Amino acid sequence: MVKIIDQRHLPFDFVIEELSTVKGIVSAIKDMHLRGAPLIGVAAAYGVYFAALDTPDDVRFDSHVYDAGELLKTARPTAVNLSWAVDIQLENLTKGKSKSDKIEILLDQAHKLAAEDIERCRNIGKSGLPLIENIAQGKNGEPVNILTHCNAGWLACVDYGTATSPIYMAHDQGIHVHVWVDETRPRNQGARLTAWELQEHGVPHTVITDNTGGHLMQNNKVDLVFVGTDRTARNGDVANKIGTYLKALAAFDNNIPFYVAAPSSSIDWDCHDGLNCIEIEKRDADEVKYVEGSINNRISRVLIAPIESDAINYAFDVTPSRLVTGLITERGICQAIEKSMLNLFPEFR
Amino acid sequence: MVKIIDQRHLPFDFVIEELSTVKGIVSAIKDMHLRGAPLIGVAAAYGVYFAALDTPDDVRFDSHVYDAGELLKTARPTAVNLSWAVDIQLENLTKGKSKSDKIEILLDQAHKLAAEDIERCRNIGKSGLPLIENIAQGKNGEPVNILTHCNAGWLACVDYGTATSPIYMAHDQGIHVHVWVDETRPRNQGARLTAWELQEHGVPHTVITDNTGGHLMQNNKVDLVFVGTDRTARNGDVANKIGTYLKALAAFDNNIPFYVAAPSSSIDWDCHDGLNCIEIEKRDADEVKYVEGSINNRISRVLIAPIESDAINYAFDVTPSRLVTGLITERGICQAIEKSMLNLFPEFR
Repeated sequence: MVKIIDQRHLPFDFVIEELSTVKGIVSAIKDMHLRGAPLIGVAAAYGVYFAALDTPDDVRFDSHVYDAGELLKTARPTAVNLSWAVDIQLENLTKGKSKSDKIEILLDQAHKLAAEDIERCRNIGKSGLPLIENIAQGKNGEPVNILTHCNAGWLACVDYGTATSPIYMAHDQGIHVHVWVDETRPRNQGARLTAWELQEHGVPHTVITDNTGGHLMQNNKVDLVFVGTDRTARNGDVANKIGTYLKALAAFDNNIPFYVAAPSSSIDWDCHDGLNCIEIEKRDADEVKYVEGSINNRISRVLIAPIESDAINYAFDVTPSRLVTGLITERGICQAIEKSMLNLFPEFR
Repeated sequence: MVKIIDQRHLPFDFVIEELSTVKGIVSAIKDMHLRGAPLIGVAAAYGVYFAALDTPDDVRFDSHVYDAGELLKTARPTAVNLSWAVDIQLENLTKGKSKSDKIEILLDQAHKLAAEDIERCRNIGKSGLPLIENIAQGKNGEPVNILTHCNAGWLACVDYGTATSPIYMAHDQGIHVHVWVDETRPRNQGARLTAWELQEHGVPHTVITDNTGGHLMQNNKVDLVFVGTDRTARNGDVANKIGTYLKALAAFDNNIPFYVAAPSSSIDWDCHDGLNCIEIEKRDADEVKYVEGSINNRISRVLIAPIESDAINYAFDVTPSRLVTGLITERGICQAIEKSMLNLFPEFR
């Protein structure tokens, strides 16, 4: 059994959900009880383990687990961490001899993936911290203003977060940081999750609509942009939450560094051209036509458009590498180009 | 007495409000019962008339009306149509001789401004229509996809709208148009007003989050962008609803024509540098932290962020002229540069 925070209730309620079946993990990913590329990967790894544990006696063990892995991969299409983690698990099936051996290996591997994710995020913090420190030096105690989109915080990972990791580290070292939090429609992961995380950690922040970042950048109110990634292509193109591309354009137009916190688990080395090879998830149009929030501490949703109007809901977009100042990885910062990425990760040459 | 549509109830309810005092007009503008740069101008013109009508006997008529004009101008700072219309009215005070003369002139002028606004919008339609026709020719019956932000429709004017005027005209001529409607947070004028207008008129449209336009443009799903303007500077910079700048960047990055429907009443010939001279309205942060919509046909609002989190609410941004393909005016299309604008409006040389 794993315990997750059912993020659908945040920031209004803190609900722990217990999951112990692959089916439970699949719906938790699909319906976004949990989300965030790194966390999806780790959850899926446990999902494979649950499938193994639940294999009926009259069914071939390996093929049952393979099928479960394929099912997990279809839960959401864009974040590569999902198939990456499932594939690592499925390779384990060739390692153990008995069924019980394999089950033990799968559990160990899931634990290991969770631990490694924490370590990667911590190291992303270390890699990104100097970017904030350098700007802080020229600020005479004025806050370093960092804009972020969606939630690439610890809620999206196991701990620390990706884009937030250097921010927490800087804050904990006494550097004055302030975060502009894009609300991130349609599901408002920025307003609901990132703002909550920052609030809990005591990091000064201001929630803004997704429309606002450009204006702030034009008026020297943003020093850095940090975002996460759901899939980074070998050419440095970055798929992330819908709207990221617009912020990258604005950062480029205003000479503001735009960094993507990219753990290696989110790099798809087989994708050579992000703009053309990454599948963009299309979700229910009702997420656009209705906005969910709280009325007197009860989660409710309001209709914000004519009921007859069509709506469409693309969940991600792709930011071309030319707009990305750098990728912050667990091994350091590199340019968003293949050659520079391979310098840090030569094993993928 | 004037009748307005109290737009705060749309698209869920159609409420007519009767206004007959300058105070009523000021709050209707401030609290956005009515909004849209051209409509604000016309409403303010009637406001000056109401002030004149209501002048107490023991008060100097002219100075009472001047004071009312100044009050009207402060209702909202960004749309220039407001001060433009008020100034036209205040000049009238020098024309009439008696109090009753002046009141009659003010009423006539308000009617004239309303009629001229309709005419300007109709002519913007004529000016912009060929842009749609040209694209339609290459489309073999496939729809011409036009993206718009906020509401620059007839609800924002007296009739036709600015950005929507060419769209309605094209649709009425049997050209297959389809409109991408940015929801336009925080007040969702796109989802609530533009979608409603288009729905009522039978124009195919799809509501999208403000984050989505860039992705659509990258994927050849947008042929044209049409937006309105609250203040166009002499150098072609355009203040419009917050987020317009981000769409202009995306259009530029994808070689998509980005046109601003700019009636001459929205051009501030005294402002030589839009990025530096246009005051950007800051509204209540609660418009960001709460989203208003309908639950079972009752307007309600949901909290979408931690109650403790700060939020900030800039209502407009400025799109630099370099990103504007052209201005669609009532006298034709010009480039967003002073020289070209003055060719159409030589009286401001």
